[in-house]
Amino acid sequence: MAGNMDAIMLIGDSLTQGGWEPGGFAQRLAYRYARKMDVLNRGLSGYNTEWALEVFKQTFPRNDGGGGGQKVKLLIIWFGANDAVLPPKVQHSPLPKFKENMHTLISLLRSPSSAYHSPHTRLLLITPPPFSSLQRGSILASRTPPEPLDRDQAVTRAYAQAVRELGEEQAIPVVDMYTLLWEGAGGKEEGLDKWMQDGLHVNAAAYEVLYDHIVSTVKTHYPELHPDNLPFVFAPWDEMIRTTDVKGTLQSRYKNV
Amino acid sequence: MAGNMDAIMLIGDSLTQGGWEPGGFAQRLAYRYARKMDVLNRGLSGYNTEWALEVFKQTFPRNDGGGGGQKVKLLIIWFGANDAVLPPKVQHSPLPKFKENMHTLISLLRSPSSAYHSPHTRLLLITPPPFSSLQRGSILASRTPPEPLDRDQAVTRAYAQAVRELGEEQAIPVVDMYTLLWEGAGGKEEGLDKWMQDGLHVNAAAYEVLYDHIVSTVKTHYPELHPDNLPFVFAPWDEMIRTTDVKGTLQSRYKNV
Repeated sequence: MAGNMDAIMLIGDSLTQGGWEPGGFAQRLAYRYARKMDVLNRGLSGYNTEWALEVFKQTFPRNDGGGGGQKVKLLIIWFGANDAVLPPKVQHSPLPKFKENMHTLISLLRSPSSAYHSPHTRLLLITPPPFSSLQRGSILASRTPPEPLDRDQAVTRAYAQAVRELGEEQAIPVVDMYTLLWEGAGGKEEGLDKWMQDGLHVNAAAYEVLYDHIVSTVKTHYPELHPDNLPFVFAPWDEMIRTTDVKGTLQSRYKNV
Repeated sequence: MAGNMDAIMLIGDSLTQGGWEPGGFAQRLAYRYARKMDVLNRGLSGYNTEWALEVFKQTFPRNDGGGGGQKVKLLIIWFGANDAVLPPKVQHSPLPKFKENMHTLISLLRSPSSAYHSPHTRLLLITPPPFSSLQRGSILASRTPPEPLDRDQAVTRAYAQAVRELGEEQAIPVVDMYTLLWEGAGGKEEGLDKWMQDGLHVNAAAYEVLYDHIVSTVKTHYPELHPDNLPFVFAPWDEMIRTTDVKGTLQSRYKNV
């Protein structure tokens, strides 16, 4: 696109798709990065990493595309909540498969031989949040016929741990939503109500925690992408009312960081 | 971008830039069009049409760009609030100049000889909203030194009227925010509080009115772009858990309407 507006891309499951809710992390990022970077939400409700990998290859700009598209300068990756569902639910990915898929995703971006090799894309991982067995359990129990609980806290915790390890191994910063929400809940399922809509999907308070940690993580690890360090691509109005060179002042200030 | 995700582009002033607020019309559109079309907000706080035209030429995809970028299928144009400010404020554009600039903008998109000619882009105009002389007046009066009121309701109304006329003349649908908010206020400045943050910028209630009218206008005039008529570009999860052809089901369903 002309004007060289870069993008932040979000990939993940319903927690990411729901980021466009009022107070969601996509909405907050879009507001904060207005006139600096676009936010492209590629969240896919109900998806696991197995399915998402196929979509990624159809969504992320290929480096043989001849340009013209936006550059994704920051890719935020948030999977695990559905991979961690218990069998026989179809979305279940065994932990080794989840790790392999996450590894494949990173390799697609980082291997020079990959069609998606993208050295200008900074990465950020998010761990899956805890779920509330109380809320989720009562929703499933109220269905006709009643369904058993489809997640296990220790299992979800292991998927979060896998994301932390991947971050360490690959030197990618991680926002550890699992730990942030669990500790914020006082380490008790009863405490999770404050973060949850329905036991699985987080609310605006949890998204605010996420947003704050994304911005502070960007500040530490990718300061060139922090909103305070990116110019408005086009001049702020208070410069416009002072300038004597209207056309010159209106030239794009896009910074290819 | 691969995956062929089309875009809705918003151009305008601070009323548009603020569309990313929680409950703003950009947030609401992004939520509703998730997995169907991206929302690209090109709102420029404080801008008039004179400045915005220069930015448009650097922002809107040129048709000689060789492809690769997203197609803007819907362009929502919302100017007038700053053009209608009274002189000597620098943002003032006389009414004939405002009309000319709006006309130029449309011509850039519709003239076959234009570098921005874009037959696949549907257009939608929004009239500038009323301002509250009570709220705006008291904010300006409280400045040091106090400033006089910088807008006139009859003037803003004339700019709204110009947008309505342009829509009629060019056969472009118009969401008449001026009339919607004014009538919703009982035709009295005192009633405008319910729509306003500060006398100029509208609140989430007004953005909801706007969003609802955008969606219903799209339904009437561009039904192929109504969210109910666009598929998720990638399969919903409840299809995924039933399919026996995972890879086939995950192929992009992008519809070039």
